[in-house]
Amino acid sequence: MTHRFFVEAEAIAEETAVLRGDQAHQIATVLRLRPGERVVLVRTGVETLIALEAVHPREVRGRVVERRAADAEPRAKLSLALPILRGEHSEQVVAAVTQLGVSRIVPFVSVRSVVRELAPAKRERWARIARESAETARRGLVPEIEGTVEWEGLFDVLAPLVLVAWEQETTRRLADALPPSRVLSLVIGPEGGLTAAEIELARERGAITVSLGRRNLRSETAAVASVAQVMAVLD
Amino acid sequence: MTHRFFVEAEAIAEETAVLRGDQAHQIATVLRLRPGERVVLVRTGVETLIALEAVHPREVRGRVVERRAADAEPRAKLSLALPILRGEHSEQVVAAVTQLGVSRIVPFVSVRSVVRELAPAKRERWARIARESAETARRGLVPEIEGTVEWEGLFDVLAPLVLVAWEQETTRRLADALPPSRVLSLVIGPEGGLTAAEIELARERGAITVSLGRRNLRSETAAVASVAQVMAVLD
Repeated sequence: MTHRFFVEAEAIAEETAVLRGDQAHQIATVLRLRPGERVVLVRTGVETLIALEAVHPREVRGRVVERRAADAEPRAKLSLALPILRGEHSEQVVAAVTQLGVSRIVPFVSVRSVVRELAPAKRERWARIARESAETARRGLVPEIEGTVEWEGLFDVLAPLVLVAWEQETTRRLADALPPSRVLSLVIGPEGGLTAAEIELARERGAITVSLGRRNLRSETAAVASVAQVMAVLD
Repeated sequence: MTHRFFVEAEAIAEETAVLRGDQAHQIATVLRLRPGERVVLVRTGVETLIALEAVHPREVRGRVVERRAADAEPRAKLSLALPILRGEHSEQVVAAVTQLGVSRIVPFVSVRSVVRELAPAKRERWARIARESAETARRGLVPEIEGTVEWEGLFDVLAPLVLVAWEQETTRRLADALPPSRVLSLVIGPEGGLTAAEIELARERGAITVSLGRRNLRSETAAVASVAQVMAVLD
C-alpha cells in the first residue's frame, strides 16, 4: 500500500513537491523509500500522487503524477463533543471516531466530569492520534481538536442540529433524530452522567436528547457506538 | 443505583438468597452495605431483588422481594468472532461489545494473526471483563468467552447467518445483510487482514462478506462499530 502523509500547503507546487522535517526523516530513514517509489500527499480533501526523485533525511523531492479527490471522506459533517475521560480512554475514542469519520472533536467539562482539564501535552497527543488515525483510515482531512469548553459554552461552538446522548431519554432513538442536511453535532456525557440542569440548559439552546438503546454504556463505548451509527445511516 | 451481581443457581432459593466468597466480601467490606439495604442478583435473564438480612464478610443472607425479567437483554442473538489483538485492544473490545449486547465471543487465529494464542490468564481476564461490563450495562446474561479456534474451525462453531467484515467487499453493506431472524454471527479480521484463501473458505461454508464503509478501520474499531450497527437495527 502506498504511504500517505498529510501535508501543509507549501509542500506541493503545480508539478513538484518538497517535504522536510519529520516527514523527510520518515521517508528517508524509517521507511527507506528510494527515488522512483511513490507516496501520496493529502491536503484538504485532495490526494496528490508523487514519484520520488531525490531522497535525503532532511529533504525529499518528487514530481506530481496525479491529483484526485480523497474518496473516503464522509458526506456527513459530524462534530463530536467529548468529555475528557480518565486514563487512556479519550485517546482510544479519538482514534476510533477519527477512523469512523468525525469532522471535529470538541473536548468539554461538565458538573460531574472527573477530569477537568486537558493539559497541553495531552491535547497535542490527541492531535497526533487524530492525524495518524486519519492516515490509517485513508481520509482526506484530519479532524480538528478544538479548545476545551465548559457546558455553558458548548452550545455556542456546536453546529445545530445538536443531539445529546442521555440515559434517561427512553423514547427518541439516535437513528430517528438524524437531520437530512447531514450536518450535526453529537454530545456524549461524562462518566458520572449529565445533571437535570445541564439537560435543561441544552434543551433551551435547541439541543435534542436521544437514546443509545436499553443498555447502560460507558462514555467511551457510547462515543464510538453513536458515531458508528451516524455514519452507517448518513454516509 | 442498586448494585447488581451475577450469581450461580445455588445462590437463590424460592424466598431466600445466600452469597459467599468474593461477592460477600464485596457487599460487606467494600460496599459496606447493611441489613435492610437492597441488591439485585441476576441469573440467566432473571433479576431478583433482595433485601439484605445478615451481612458478614464470609456470608451475606437476604430475602427475595421481587423477581422480574432483565429488560436490557437484546432481542438479537449475536456471536462475535474476534481475532486476538495486540496489547490491551482485545480487552477494550470485550468490554465495549458486552455493553452493546453480544451473546457470545469466539476468539480465533488466522493466517495473518500477529498474536496466535490466548493464554489462560488472559482468557480469564476476558471473562472477568465480560462479567463486569454486563453488570455495568445492566444486562441479564454474561456473554460466553469460547475456546480459541483456527479459521478452518470457526465455521463449525458459529451459528448462521455468518457475516465477515472484509475491506475488499465494496457493494454489500452490513446493514443490508442482517437476517430477519435476529440470529447471526459477525467475523472481524485481524490487524493484517484476511487472505483471499480465507475468504474463499468462508464463502464455501456459507458466509457472506460485508463492508463497514469507505474508511479503513482498525480491527478494534471495526468490532465495536459493527456490533453497534447490528444492535441499532435489530434491537
